[in-house]
Amino acid sequence: MPVPPPTVPDPYDISTAAAAAAAAPTGRFARRTAGMTASEIRALFAVASRPEVVSLAGGMPNLAALPLDTLAAEVGQLVASEGQTALQYGSAQGTPALREQICEVMRLEGIDADPNDVVVTVGSQMALDLITRIYCDPGDVVLAEGPSYVGALGSFAAYQARVVHVAMDAHGLVPQNLRDALESLARQGITPKFLYTIPNFHNPAGVTLAVERRTEILEICASYGVAVVEDNPYGLLGFSGTVYPALRSFDRDVVYLGSFSKTFASGLRVGWALVPPAVRDRLVLAAESATLCPPTFNQMIVSRYLQTQDWRSQVKTFTEAYRERRDAMLAALETHLPPGCSWNVPDGGFYVWLTVPEGVDTKAMLPRAVTARVAYASGTGFYADGFGSSQLRLSYCYPTPERIEEGVRRLAGVLGAELDVMRTFGVPARTPRLRSGPDAPSPDTA
Amino acid sequence: MPVPPPTVPDPYDISTAAAAAAAAPTGRFARRTAGMTASEIRALFAVASRPEVVSLAGGMPNLAALPLDTLAAEVGQLVASEGQTALQYGSAQGTPALREQICEVMRLEGIDADPNDVVVTVGSQMALDLITRIYCDPGDVVLAEGPSYVGALGSFAAYQARVVHVAMDAHGLVPQNLRDALESLARQGITPKFLYTIPNFHNPAGVTLAVERRTEILEICASYGVAVVEDNPYGLLGFSGTVYPALRSFDRDVVYLGSFSKTFASGLRVGWALVPPAVRDRLVLAAESATLCPPTFNQMIVSRYLQTQDWRSQVKTFTEAYRERRDAMLAALETHLPPGCSWNVPDGGFYVWLTVPEGVDTKAMLPRAVTARVAYASGTGFYADGFGSSQLRLSYCYPTPERIEEGVRRLAGVLGAELDVMRTFGVPARTPRLRSGPDAPSPDTA
Repeated sequence: MPVPPPTVPDPYDISTAAAAAAAAPTGRFARRTAGMTASEIRALFAVASRPEVVSLAGGMPNLAALPLDTLAAEVGQLVASEGQTALQYGSAQGTPALREQICEVMRLEGIDADPNDVVVTVGSQMALDLITRIYCDPGDVVLAEGPSYVGALGSFAAYQARVVHVAMDAHGLVPQNLRDALESLARQGITPKFLYTIPNFHNPAGVTLAVERRTEILEICASYGVAVVEDNPYGLLGFSGTVYPALRSFDRDVVYLGSFSKTFASGLRVGWALVPPAVRDRLVLAAESATLCPPTFNQMIVSRYLQTQDWRSQVKTFTEAYRERRDAMLAALETHLPPGCSWNVPDGGFYVWLTVPEGVDTKAMLPRAVTARVAYASGTGFYADGFGSSQLRLSYCYPTPERIEEGVRRLAGVLGAELDVMRTFGVPARTPRLRSGPDAPSPDTA
Repeated sequence: MPVPPPTVPDPYDISTAAAAAAAAPTGRFARRTAGMTASEIRALFAVASRPEVVSLAGGMPNLAALPLDTLAAEVGQLVASEGQTALQYGSAQGTPALREQICEVMRLEGIDADPNDVVVTVGSQMALDLITRIYCDPGDVVLAEGPSYVGALGSFAAYQARVVHVAMDAHGLVPQNLRDALESLARQGITPKFLYTIPNFHNPAGVTLAVERRTEILEICASYGVAVVEDNPYGLLGFSGTVYPALRSFDRDVVYLGSFSKTFASGLRVGWALVPPAVRDRLVLAAESATLCPPTFNQMIVSRYLQTQDWRSQVKTFTEAYRERRDAMLAALETHLPPGCSWNVPDGGFYVWLTVPEGVDTKAMLPRAVTARVAYASGTGFYADGFGSSQLRLSYCYPTPERIEEGVRRLAGVLGAELDVMRTFGVPARTPRLRSGPDAPSPDTA
């Protein structure tokens, strides 16, 4: 459909992005490969994982608290007693037993679900990838918070979808920004396929969508005929013990993505999608062509764990460890960071989103940080359009509090040096900042 | 590119198929969902899995011979001693240890490989899906044997690729048929993205590509600039003990797909792709957006199994069980089937490909077979174009020899009844037979 030129500069105008995507050359490979590039974070993992580097970049859950001996016994028993089933192919949708238990887990967030509408996937990343597969043709538009989860941006790029970011504030996605974006896209003749949102303890922004905004956002999307994809890997990891009602608890049409990677064990790669029946049938077919079926063994391990272990206490134990680390990071930021920095105070999850003084380019600074033996994820990795060069993500999930403090101290040194250079030679020319909807304020400055 | 009308009826003319694909309506979902339909085999699994039904339809490996107690101890030890690593995220490419061991396994087929070129996937189905993702734009053409693996056809459909079948004979893919197909496509201005081939103990045809044809087929593809994707899940399951040299052993540009589903345990979902470096980099990125990483735990279990167990003897044990079952099936076919049926004698793998007398439609007969408590996979499921209604696939991998004999007896009864009806009322109008390249002879009648 032709796009009328907007009468005023429109932050949501994506006609240029479309042209750029269409132009990409790929030789003997599919056009979609042009959009498949290594994320800054992943590209960085190799260096950042050297022991002398304090990595505040990754999102690896802290598994130290897992009762390995008990698990060893349970898993061994599973192989001995049910190995013929556990080591065999299973159904593409997942085992009925685990789908029942997943409904129990989701009930904690106010979700009333039928196990027949649950599809077990190889981590929720696979659900995200397949949901994009069944919704998006090349050029289709997806709405996502700005910033958004790097793995989601990767899947959207792999299916040649165009991403329009909608800014958040300290209370999550801003309903008026969502309306503005949908209005602008409507003027361009575009109905986005879905809104991708992480309502709780956002990755990377650390914020949580205010409960009173949840139904409003659902109503806005419904009124524009836009589906909602709710990604909720951190929902049970709130430091206050509060569990927020899922968007899905208000609206059965919401596509809900969940995972055991943060509440149990990421190395098992067990996640799921809860979807309306019409989506489920397509999702199961897509899952079949993607992997035939998720590993039966891993599903039975999670089932057994949920059945035989006090998994709620285990989640509480995890959460306490994360809160201790968050506190260590916040204290270190207060103590060491130079003036002009701002950050949010996450009340759950893994991440602090930091805004650095104007003029500092977090992407350009990253190699110098790694040289100083600290790694972070620069903000641009969390935007589809190059925005985010004044932001960075700090993860407190994995290192010990002592290492976190040391890492922040090193980061402060690097930032200080950048600022000294700027004072001496003036603010350097910025990396050209591309459009990202309205200039998204960092969550704490709204 | 415009397709000139062929001067003579051309079995490889795909212009009509292209138009059909483009026309499909999909509402709010992606166009690719129009091609995502439940395969006849999968649709059948529910009924066929009732205990009173002898299922000769599925391809489930026989795990009865696995030493579960030993495995239980090994897996338990793994969790107790390395649980912090095994239950954590890993790299998208797979663990270095397993990639090294995979190269050892492939050496049995004459493959000289660098572990850096191996990408571990969630079963080889995931490798197949991602290879299609990085090679195929909508409308691109893929060559595949006729018949071909139903899971491959599913992935090709999911990426809106068009499949052109190339007929086999008793010695596998026929080089001249491959030349003819490539010539015809060249006249249509089309260069296929790749040839997808299963050289050993073919699923579903049961045939093996003659060694003297292997380099010839590689040369033909090279001369037309067509990549080769070699899918080899059954290569080590030869009844004579012969291990055939892989296509990859002759040509480092071949994309090779392997799996532990048939040599160890399908429920772990551990497969791999061995690819040239330029493909590898794209494959790893595609794998990241598909699942982030394959399950670390499952990879470490396979590593430990290969390291601590006599896995070659285990494969020999599996193979002997399959040979016994093949013999039971062949004997039962000889004893019970009515005249006019023909089938191949597989010297490895899981499958017998059966051609029924002219006039019998295996797809139409399937419900009557299930009523008679025997299930098979009708031939049309193994073609992208509706061909195969005179064929069906019988799997001997899973049931006991006694059950196989009983299943074939029941199948013979159903076939006999169909033939009686035909004798009484004449040959019914066939399901319209669509084009599938030349009318592929069943492997044993060539």
